[in-house]
Amino acid sequence: MSRDSLEARLRAIGAERYHDKHPFHHKLHGGDCTPDQVRAWVINRWAYQAAIPMKDAAFMSRCTDPDIRREWRSRIEDHDGGIDEGGGLRRWLKLAEAVGLNPDYVASGVGILPATRFACEAYVHYVREKPLLQAVASSLTELFAPKIHENRIEGLLKHYDFANLVSLSYFRKRLTEAPKDVAYGLKWVLDHADTPEKEDMACEALLFKTDMLWAQLDALWSAYVDGHVPPGAWQPGDSMA
Amino acid sequence: MSRDSLEARLRAIGAERYHDKHPFHHKLHGGDCTPDQVRAWVINRWAYQAAIPMKDAAFMSRCTDPDIRREWRSRIEDHDGGIDEGGGLRRWLKLAEAVGLNPDYVASGVGILPATRFACEAYVHYVREKPLLQAVASSLTELFAPKIHENRIEGLLKHYDFANLVSLSYFRKRLTEAPKDVAYGLKWVLDHADTPEKEDMACEALLFKTDMLWAQLDALWSAYVDGHVPPGAWQPGDSMA
Repeated sequence: MSRDSLEARLRAIGAERYHDKHPFHHKLHGGDCTPDQVRAWVINRWAYQAAIPMKDAAFMSRCTDPDIRREWRSRIEDHDGGIDEGGGLRRWLKLAEAVGLNPDYVASGVGILPATRFACEAYVHYVREKPLLQAVASSLTELFAPKIHENRIEGLLKHYDFANLVSLSYFRKRLTEAPKDVAYGLKWVLDHADTPEKEDMACEALLFKTDMLWAQLDALWSAYVDGHVPPGAWQPGDSMA
Repeated sequence: MSRDSLEARLRAIGAERYHDKHPFHHKLHGGDCTPDQVRAWVINRWAYQAAIPMKDAAFMSRCTDPDIRREWRSRIEDHDGGIDEGGGLRRWLKLAEAVGLNPDYVASGVGILPATRFACEAYVHYVREKPLLQAVASSLTELFAPKIHENRIEGLLKHYDFANLVSLSYFRKRLTEAPKDVAYGLKWVLDHADTPEKEDMACEALLFKTDMLWAQLDALWSAYVDGHVPPGAWQPGDSMA
Protein backbone atom coordinates (compact mmCIF):
# COMPACT_ATOMS: atom_id res chain seq x y z
CA MET A 1 0.00 0.00 0.00
CA SER A 2 2.75 2.41 1.01
CA ARG A 3 4.61 1.70 -2.22
CA ASP A 4 1.55 2.65 -4.24
CA SER A 5 0.91 5.82 -2.27
CA LEU A 6 4.54 6.92 -2.58
CA GLU A 7 4.51 6.27 -6.31
CA ALA A 8 1.30 8.29 -6.54
CA ARG A 9 2.91 11.18 -4.61
CA LEU A 10 5.93 11.12 -6.91
CA ARG A 11 3.75 11.09 -10.02
CA ALA A 12 1.68 13.96 -8.62
CA ILE A 13 4.83 16.06 -8.28
CA GLY A 14 5.51 15.49 -11.97
CA ALA A 15 1.93 16.28 -12.93
CA GLU A 16 2.16 19.59 -11.14
CA ARG A 17 5.78 20.67 -11.50
CA TYR A 18 7.60 18.94 -14.35
CA HIS A 19 8.96 21.40 -16.88
CA ASP A 20 6.58 20.24 -19.60
CA LYS A 21 4.24 22.71 -17.87
CA HIS A 22 6.60 25.64 -18.35
CA PRO A 23 5.47 28.35 -20.80
CA PHE A 24 8.78 28.14 -22.65
CA HIS A 25 8.12 24.54 -23.61
CA HIS A 26 4.59 25.39 -24.77
CA LYS A 27 6.10 28.13 -26.91
CA LEU A 28 8.84 25.83 -28.23
CA HIS A 29 6.63 22.86 -29.01
CA GLY A 30 3.86 25.04 -30.42
CA GLY A 31 6.13 26.55 -33.05
CA ASP A 32 6.16 30.03 -31.50
CA CYS A 33 9.89 30.33 -30.82
CA THR A 34 12.04 32.46 -33.09
CA PRO A 35 15.15 30.77 -34.53
CA ASP A 36 17.25 32.64 -31.95
CA GLN A 37 15.04 31.47 -29.09
CA VAL A 38 15.49 27.90 -30.27
CA ARG A 39 19.25 28.51 -30.44
CA ALA A 40 19.24 29.94 -26.91
CA TRP A 41 17.47 26.80 -25.69
CA VAL A 42 19.97 24.53 -27.46
CA ILE A 43 22.96 26.46 -26.04
CA ASN A 44 21.62 26.49 -22.50
CA ARG A 45 20.25 22.98 -22.39
CA TRP A 46 23.79 21.82 -23.17
CA ALA A 47 24.65 22.72 -19.56
CA TYR A 48 22.12 20.17 -18.38
CA GLN A 49 23.18 17.52 -20.89
CA ALA A 50 26.82 17.97 -19.94
CA ALA A 51 26.00 17.75 -16.22
CA ILE A 52 24.15 14.43 -16.48
CA PRO A 53 27.15 12.10 -16.84
CA MET A 54 28.96 14.10 -14.14
CA LYS A 55 26.09 13.68 -11.70
CA ASP A 56 25.87 9.99 -12.53
CA ALA A 57 29.60 9.65 -11.89
CA ALA A 58 29.11 11.58 -8.63
CA PHE A 59 26.47 9.04 -7.70
CA MET A 60 28.79 6.14 -8.47
CA SER A 61 31.64 7.78 -6.54
CA ARG A 62 29.69 7.52 -3.30
CA CYS A 63 27.92 4.26 -3.99
CA THR A 64 29.67 1.40 -2.19
CA ASP A 65 27.55 -1.38 -3.70
CA PRO A 66 29.15 -2.67 -6.93
CA ASP A 67 25.81 -4.11 -8.09
CA ILE A 68 24.17 -0.69 -8.06
CA ARG A 69 27.15 0.85 -9.82
CA ARG A 70 26.99 -1.83 -12.51
CA GLU A 71 23.35 -0.92 -13.20
CA TRP A 72 23.98 2.81 -13.01
CA ARG A 73 26.94 2.89 -15.36
CA SER A 74 24.77 2.56 -18.48
CA ARG A 75 23.49 6.08 -17.81
CA ILE A 76 26.98 7.46 -18.32
CA GLU A 77 27.42 5.23 -21.36
CA ASP A 78 24.17 6.54 -22.86
CA HIS A 79 25.18 10.18 -22.52
CA ASP A 80 28.94 10.13 -23.01
CA GLY A 81 28.97 7.22 -25.43
CA GLY A 82 32.10 5.60 -26.83
CA ILE A 83 35.38 7.32 -27.70
CA ASP A 84 34.50 7.38 -31.40
CA GLU A 85 30.73 7.70 -31.67
CA GLY A 86 30.00 9.90 -28.66
CA GLY A 87 26.49 9.13 -27.32
CA GLY A 88 23.76 11.57 -26.25
CA LEU A 89 26.11 14.52 -25.87
CA ARG A 90 27.20 14.24 -29.46
CA ARG A 91 23.60 13.78 -30.58
CA TRP A 92 22.82 17.09 -28.86
CA LEU A 93 25.53 18.75 -30.94
CA LYS A 94 23.78 17.46 -34.10
CA LEU A 95 20.80 19.50 -32.97
CA ALA A 96 23.11 22.47 -32.40
CA GLU A 97 24.38 22.20 -35.97
CA ALA A 98 20.88 21.83 -37.32
CA VAL A 99 19.73 25.10 -35.73
CA GLY A 100 22.72 26.91 -37.23
CA LEU A 101 25.10 26.97 -34.27
CA ASN A 102 28.77 26.06 -34.19
CA PRO A 103 28.82 22.78 -32.22
CA ASP A 104 32.26 23.63 -30.80
CA TYR A 105 30.83 26.84 -29.37
CA VAL A 106 27.91 24.99 -27.81
CA ALA A 107 30.21 22.29 -26.40
CA SER A 108 32.50 24.94 -24.90
CA GLY A 109 29.71 26.04 -22.57
CA VAL A 110 30.60 29.68 -23.24
CA GLY A 111 27.53 31.89 -23.30
CA ILE A 112 25.40 29.69 -21.05
CA LEU A 113 23.27 31.72 -18.63
CA PRO A 114 24.83 31.77 -15.15
CA ALA A 115 21.50 30.81 -13.55
CA THR A 116 21.42 27.72 -15.75
CA ARG A 117 24.99 26.79 -14.89
CA PHE A 118 24.26 27.19 -11.18
CA ALA A 119 21.16 25.00 -11.43
CA CYS A 120 23.11 22.24 -13.19
CA GLU A 121 25.97 22.45 -10.71
CA ALA A 122 23.44 22.25 -7.90
CA TYR A 123 22.26 18.94 -9.35
CA VAL A 124 25.77 17.45 -9.36
CA HIS A 125 26.32 18.64 -5.78
CA TYR A 126 22.94 17.32 -4.68
CA VAL A 127 23.68 13.85 -6.00
CA ARG A 128 27.15 13.89 -4.48
CA GLU A 129 26.11 15.06 -1.02
CA LYS A 130 22.57 14.01 -0.16
CA PRO A 131 21.56 10.61 1.23
CA LEU A 132 21.68 7.89 -1.42
CA LEU A 133 17.89 7.62 -1.40
CA GLN A 134 17.61 11.25 -2.46
CA ALA A 135 20.40 10.91 -5.01
CA VAL A 136 18.39 8.13 -6.66
CA ALA A 137 15.01 9.83 -6.25
CA SER A 138 16.29 12.98 -7.94
CA SER A 139 16.58 10.96 -11.16
CA LEU A 140 12.88 10.14 -11.21
CA THR A 141 11.92 13.02 -13.47
CA GLU A 142 12.63 10.35 -16.09
CA LEU A 143 9.16 9.07 -15.22
CA PHE A 144 7.82 12.09 -17.08
CA ALA A 145 10.49 12.43 -19.77
CA PRO A 146 9.13 10.13 -22.50
CA LYS A 147 5.93 12.16 -22.73
CA ILE A 148 7.76 15.48 -23.10
CA HIS A 149 10.13 13.94 -25.63
CA GLU A 150 7.24 12.61 -27.71
CA ASN A 151 5.49 15.99 -27.61
CA ARG A 152 8.73 17.73 -28.46
CA ILE A 153 9.54 15.50 -31.41
CA GLU A 154 6.02 15.94 -32.76
CA GLY A 155 5.95 19.70 -32.17
CA LEU A 156 9.40 20.40 -33.57
CA LEU A 157 8.84 18.23 -36.67
CA LYS A 158 5.58 20.04 -37.34
CA HIS A 159 6.77 23.59 -36.84
CA TYR A 160 10.47 23.96 -37.60
CA ASP A 161 12.53 23.37 -40.75
CA PHE A 162 15.61 22.22 -38.82
CA ALA A 163 13.74 19.28 -37.31
CA ASN A 164 14.42 15.88 -38.82
CA LEU A 165 15.45 12.37 -37.76
CA VAL A 166 19.11 13.37 -37.39
CA SER A 167 18.68 16.66 -35.53
CA LEU A 168 16.17 15.10 -33.14
CA SER A 169 18.07 11.85 -32.64
CA TYR A 170 18.88 12.76 -29.04
CA PHE A 171 15.20 12.76 -28.09
CA ARG A 172 14.35 9.68 -30.12
CA LYS A 173 17.09 7.72 -28.37
CA ARG A 174 15.92 8.88 -24.93
CA LEU A 175 12.51 7.33 -25.62
CA THR A 176 14.07 3.90 -25.12
CA GLU A 177 16.89 4.80 -22.68
CA ALA A 178 14.91 6.69 -20.03
CA PRO A 179 12.25 4.02 -19.29
CA LYS A 180 14.97 1.41 -18.61
CA ASP A 181 16.73 3.75 -16.18
CA VAL A 182 13.62 4.91 -14.40
CA ALA A 183 12.28 1.39 -13.90
CA TYR A 184 15.41 0.61 -11.91
CA GLY A 185 15.42 3.95 -10.04
CA LEU A 186 11.74 3.83 -9.15
CA LYS A 187 11.95 0.28 -7.84
CA TRP A 188 15.00 1.20 -5.78
CA VAL A 189 13.27 4.21 -4.24
CA LEU A 190 10.08 2.28 -3.48
CA ASP A 191 12.16 -0.53 -1.94
CA HIS A 192 14.22 1.80 0.25
CA ALA A 193 11.78 4.53 1.27
CA ASP A 194 10.33 2.31 3.98
CA THR A 195 9.40 4.93 6.59
CA PRO A 196 7.22 8.06 6.31
CA GLU A 197 10.35 10.17 6.85
CA LYS A 198 12.12 8.50 3.92
CA GLU A 199 9.03 8.87 1.73
CA ASP A 200 9.14 12.60 2.42
CA MET A 201 12.85 12.65 1.60
CA ALA A 202 12.22 10.97 -1.74
CA CYS A 203 9.52 13.50 -2.59
CA GLU A 204 11.77 16.39 -1.58
CA ALA A 205 14.44 15.09 -3.93
CA LEU A 206 12.02 15.02 -6.83
CA LEU A 207 10.83 18.53 -5.95
CA PHE A 208 14.44 19.69 -5.98
CA LYS A 209 14.86 18.18 -9.43
CA THR A 210 11.72 19.72 -10.89
CA ASP A 211 12.87 23.05 -9.40
CA MET A 212 16.26 22.85 -11.09
CA LEU A 213 14.68 22.06 -14.46
CA TRP A 214 12.11 24.85 -14.11
CA ALA A 215 14.75 27.39 -13.03
CA GLN A 216 16.60 26.81 -16.30
CA LEU A 217 13.53 27.69 -18.35
CA ASP A 218 12.74 30.75 -16.22
CA ALA A 219 16.27 31.99 -16.90
CA LEU A 220 15.82 31.28 -20.61
CA TRP A 221 12.52 33.15 -20.70
CA SER A 222 13.90 36.13 -18.83
CA ALA A 223 16.90 36.42 -21.14
CA TYR A 224 15.53 35.50 -24.55
CA VAL A 225 11.77 36.09 -24.40
CA ASP A 226 11.66 39.09 -22.07
CA GLY A 227 15.03 40.24 -23.45
CA HIS A 228 17.07 40.64 -20.25
CA VAL A 229 20.26 38.97 -21.46
CA PRO A 230 22.79 39.12 -18.61
CA PRO A 231 26.40 40.20 -19.19
CA GLY A 232 28.53 37.48 -20.79
CA ALA A 233 25.63 35.33 -21.97
CA TRP A 234 25.11 34.43 -25.62
CA GLN A 235 23.71 37.25 -27.73
CA PRO A 236 21.79 36.45 -30.91
CA GLY A 237 24.10 37.06 -33.85
CA ASP A 238 27.25 36.38 -31.82
CA SER A 239 29.84 35.58 -34.49
CA MET A 240 31.56 32.92 -32.38
CA ALA A 241 28.40 30.85 -32.15
CA MET B 1 63.36 17.90 -22.25
CA SER B 2 61.04 18.84 -19.44
CA ARG B 3 58.73 15.92 -20.31
CA ASP B 4 61.64 13.51 -20.02
CA SER B 5 62.82 14.96 -16.73
CA LEU B 6 59.31 14.86 -15.24
CA GLU B 7 58.84 11.27 -16.35
CA ALA B 8 62.20 10.44 -14.77
CA ARG B 9 61.15 12.11 -11.50
CA LEU B 10 57.90 10.16 -11.47
CA ARG B 11 59.69 6.89 -12.13
CA ALA B 12 62.20 7.67 -9.40
CA ILE B 13 59.33 8.03 -6.91
CA GLY B 14 58.18 4.56 -7.84
CA ALA B 15 61.70 3.14 -7.61
CA GLU B 16 62.02 4.49 -4.09
CA ARG B 17 58.52 4.34 -2.65
CA TYR B 18 56.20 1.95 -4.51
CA HIS B 19 54.83 -0.75 -2.22
CA ASP B 20 56.76 -3.51 -4.00
CA LYS B 21 59.53 -2.36 -1.61
CA HIS B 22 57.45 -3.01 1.49
CA PRO B 23 58.58 -5.89 3.73
CA PHE B 24 55.08 -7.36 3.67
CA HIS B 25 55.24 -7.88 -0.06
CA HIS B 26 58.69 -9.49 0.21
CA LYS B 27 57.26 -11.81 2.82
CA LEU B 28 54.15 -12.55 0.74
CA HIS B 29 55.91 -13.12 -2.57
CA GLY B 30 58.72 -15.07 -0.94
CA GLY B 31 56.34 -17.63 0.50
CA ASP B 32 56.87 -16.57 4.11
CA CYS B 33 53.30 -15.59 4.95
CA THR B 34 51.14 -17.89 7.04
CA PRO B 35 47.73 -18.78 5.57
CA ASP B 36 46.15 -16.27 7.99
CA GLN B 37 48.53 -13.52 6.92
CA VAL B 38 47.56 -14.16 3.31
CA ARG B 39 43.90 -14.04 4.36
CA ALA B 40 44.45 -10.74 6.19
CA TRP B 41 46.02 -9.31 3.04
CA VAL B 42 43.09 -10.49 0.89
CA ILE B 43 40.52 -9.06 3.32
CA ASN B 44 42.23 -5.70 3.63
CA ARG B 45 43.22 -5.28 0.02
CA TRP B 46 39.51 -5.53 -0.78
CA ALA B 47 39.19 -2.00 0.65
CA TYR B 48 41.55 -0.75 -2.02
CA GLN B 49 39.92 -2.76 -4.81
CA ALA B 50 36.48 -1.51 -3.82
CA ALA B 51 37.70 2.10 -3.67
CA ILE B 52 39.14 2.11 -7.20
CA PRO B 53 35.88 2.36 -9.18
CA MET B 54 34.62 4.93 -6.67
CA LYS B 55 37.69 7.11 -7.13
CA ASP B 56 37.42 6.75 -10.89
CA ALA B 57 33.78 7.81 -10.71
CA ALA B 58 34.84 10.71 -8.46
CA PHE B 59 37.30 11.69 -11.18
CA MET B 60 34.61 11.56 -13.84
CA SER B 61 32.19 13.54 -11.66
CA ARG B 62 34.48 16.59 -11.75
CA CYS B 63 35.81 16.14 -15.26
CA THR B 64 34.01 18.49 -17.66
CA ASP B 65 35.63 17.15 -20.83
CA PRO B 66 33.54 14.30 -22.31
CA ASP B 67 36.56 13.02 -24.27
CA ILE B 68 38.54 12.42 -21.08
CA ARG B 69 35.53 10.78 -19.43
CA ARG B 70 35.11 8.47 -22.42
CA GLU B 71 38.72 7.29 -22.02
CA TRP B 72 38.51 7.06 -18.25
CA ARG B 73 35.31 5.03 -18.11
CA SER B 74 37.05 1.79 -19.07
CA ARG B 75 38.78 1.85 -15.66
CA ILE B 76 35.41 1.51 -13.97
CA GLU B 77 34.38 -1.15 -16.47
CA ASP B 78 37.56 -3.12 -15.75
CA HIS B 79 36.97 -3.17 -12.00
CA ASP B 80 33.19 -3.26 -11.68
CA GLY B 81 32.58 -5.26 -14.84
CA GLY B 82 29.17 -6.10 -16.22
CA ILE B 83 26.02 -6.87 -14.25
CA ASP B 84 26.47 -10.60 -14.73
CA GLU B 85 30.20 -11.27 -14.89
CA GLY B 86 31.49 -8.68 -12.44
CA GLY B 87 35.02 -7.64 -13.47
CA GLY B 88 38.10 -7.18 -11.27
CA LEU B 89 36.13 -6.97 -8.03
CA ARG B 90 34.61 -10.36 -8.61
CA ARG B 91 37.99 -11.76 -9.64
CA TRP B 92 39.32 -10.56 -6.27
CA LEU B 93 36.58 -12.59 -4.57
CA LYS B 94 37.80 -15.68 -6.46
CA LEU B 95 41.09 -15.16 -4.66
CA ALA B 96 39.20 -14.77 -1.37
CA GLU B 97 37.51 -18.11 -1.93
CA ALA B 98 40.78 -19.76 -2.89
CA VAL B 99 42.45 -18.74 0.38
CA GLY B 100 39.52 -20.16 2.35
CA LEU B 101 37.51 -17.02 3.05
CA ASN B 102 33.80 -16.44 2.63
CA PRO B 103 33.61 -14.06 -0.36
CA ASP B 104 30.48 -12.42 1.05
CA TYR B 105 32.38 -11.61 4.23
CA VAL B 106 35.25 -10.10 2.24
CA ALA B 107 32.86 -8.10 0.03
CA SER B 108 31.05 -6.77 3.11
CA GLY B 109 34.17 -4.88 4.15
CA VAL B 110 33.61 -5.96 7.76
CA GLY B 111 36.87 -6.62 9.56
CA ILE B 112 39.01 -4.33 7.41
CA LEU B 113 41.60 -2.44 9.44
CA PRO B 114 40.47 1.13 10.12
CA ALA B 115 43.83 2.52 8.98
CA THR B 116 43.33 0.75 5.65
CA ARG B 117 39.81 2.10 5.27
CA PHE B 118 41.00 5.63 6.04
CA ALA B 119 43.80 5.35 3.48
CA CYS B 120 41.37 4.19 0.78
CA GLU B 121 38.85 6.90 1.63
CA ALA B 122 41.67 9.45 1.47
CA TYR B 123 42.29 8.33 -2.11
CA VAL B 124 38.67 8.88 -3.16
CA HIS B 125 38.67 12.30 -1.50
CA TYR B 126 42.00 13.22 -3.05
CA VAL B 127 40.75 12.46 -6.55
CA ARG B 128 37.50 14.31 -5.94
CA GLU B 129 39.04 17.44 -4.48
CA LYS B 130 42.54 18.07 -5.81
CA PRO B 131 43.32 19.80 -9.11
CA LEU B 132 42.62 17.57 -12.10
CA LEU B 133 46.34 17.25 -12.81
CA GLN B 134 46.87 15.68 -9.41
CA ALA B 135 43.79 13.49 -9.72
CA VAL B 136 45.31 12.03 -12.91
CA ALA B 137 48.87 11.89 -11.57
CA SER B 138 47.75 9.92 -8.53
CA SER B 139 46.86 7.05 -10.88
CA LEU B 140 50.42 6.74 -12.14
CA THR B 141 51.43 4.03 -9.70
CA GLU B 142 50.15 1.89 -12.57
CA LEU B 143 53.53 2.58 -14.14
CA PHE B 144 54.95 0.20 -11.55
CA ALA B 145 52.05 -2.23 -11.23
CA PRO B 146 52.81 -4.74 -14.00
CA LYS B 147 56.18 -5.55 -12.41
CA ILE B 148 54.69 -6.20 -8.96
CA HIS B 149 51.88 -8.24 -10.50
CA GLU B 150 54.35 -10.38 -12.42
CA ASN B 151 56.46 -10.93 -9.29
CA ARG B 152 53.33 -11.67 -7.30
CA ILE B 153 51.96 -14.20 -9.76
CA GLU B 154 55.34 -15.92 -9.92
CA GLY B 155 55.89 -15.87 -6.15
CA LEU B 156 52.39 -17.00 -5.22
CA LEU B 157 52.36 -19.82 -7.80
CA LYS B 158 55.70 -21.03 -6.50
CA HIS B 159 54.98 -20.91 -2.80
CA TYR B 160 51.25 -21.34 -2.08
CA ASP B 161 48.82 -24.16 -2.81
CA PHE B 162 45.86 -21.80 -3.30
CA ALA B 163 47.55 -20.08 -6.25
CA ASN B 164 46.37 -21.06 -9.72
CA LEU B 165 45.09 -19.44 -12.89
CA VAL B 166 41.62 -18.85 -11.44
CA SER B 167 42.60 -17.51 -8.03
CA LEU B 168 45.19 -15.18 -9.57
CA SER B 169 43.01 -14.07 -12.48
CA TYR B 170 42.72 -10.55 -11.01
CA PHE B 171 46.46 -9.99 -11.36
CA ARG B 172 46.73 -11.68 -14.75
CA LYS B 173 44.03 -9.40 -16.13
CA ARG B 174 45.70 -6.28 -14.71
CA LEU B 175 48.83 -7.10 -16.73
CA THR B 176 46.98 -5.99 -19.86
CA GLU B 177 44.58 -3.43 -18.32
CA ALA B 178 47.05 -1.28 -16.38
CA PRO B 179 49.47 -0.47 -19.24
CA LYS B 180 46.60 0.84 -21.41
CA ASP B 181 45.39 3.10 -18.59
CA VAL B 182 48.79 4.38 -17.60
CA ALA B 183 49.80 5.20 -21.17
CA TYR B 184 46.85 7.59 -21.31
CA GLY B 185 47.41 8.98 -17.80
CA LEU B 186 51.13 9.51 -18.23
CA LYS B 187 50.71 11.31 -21.54
CA TRP B 188 48.01 13.51 -20.02
CA VAL B 189 50.21 14.45 -17.07
CA LEU B 190 53.24 15.15 -19.26
CA ASP B 191 51.08 17.24 -21.60
CA HIS B 192 49.54 19.28 -18.80
CA ALA B 193 52.36 19.68 -16.26
CA ASP B 194 53.85 22.52 -18.28
CA THR B 195 55.36 24.64 -15.50
CA PRO B 196 57.80 23.72 -12.72
CA GLU B 197 55.00 24.28 -10.20
CA LYS B 198 52.76 21.81 -11.99
CA GLU B 199 55.57 19.29 -12.26
CA ASP B 200 55.95 19.48 -8.49
CA MET B 201 52.19 19.04 -8.10
CA ALA B 202 52.24 15.90 -10.24
CA CYS B 203 55.08 14.45 -8.17
CA GLU B 204 53.27 15.29 -4.93
CA ALA B 205 50.24 13.41 -6.17
CA LEU B 206 52.29 10.32 -6.89
CA LEU B 207 53.95 10.60 -3.47
CA PHE B 208 50.49 10.76 -1.90
CA LYS B 209 49.52 7.61 -3.77
CA THR B 210 52.62 5.66 -2.80
CA ASP B 211 52.03 6.80 0.80
CA MET B 212 48.44 5.49 0.80
CA LEU B 213 49.54 2.12 -0.59
CA TRP B 214 52.42 1.85 1.89
CA ALA B 215 50.21 2.82 4.86
CA GLN B 216 47.94 -0.14 4.11
CA LEU B 217 50.83 -2.59 4.34
CA ASP B 218 52.18 -0.97 7.53
CA ALA B 219 48.75 -1.46 9.09
CA LEU B 220 48.70 -5.06 7.88
CA TRP B 221 52.16 -5.73 9.30
CA SER B 222 51.30 -4.15 12.63
CA ALA B 223 48.11 -6.19 13.01
CA TYR B 224 48.98 -9.55 11.51
CA VAL B 225 52.77 -9.85 11.64
CA ASP B 226 53.47 -7.98 14.88
CA GLY B 227 50.13 -9.15 16.24
CA HIS B 228 48.53 -5.86 17.29
CA VAL B 229 45.04 -6.52 15.87
CA PRO B 230 42.89 -3.46 16.69
CA PRO B 231 39.36 -3.83 18.12
CA GLY B 232 36.79 -4.81 15.50
CA ALA B 233 39.28 -5.98 12.89
CA TRP B 234 39.29 -9.52 11.48
CA GLN B 235 40.73 -12.12 13.83
CA PRO B 236 42.18 -15.34 12.43
CA GLY B 237 39.62 -18.07 12.93
CA ASP B 238 36.66 -15.67 12.87
CA SER B 239 33.72 -17.93 12.09
CA MET B 240 31.99 -15.33 9.92
CA ALA B 241 34.92 -15.16 7.55
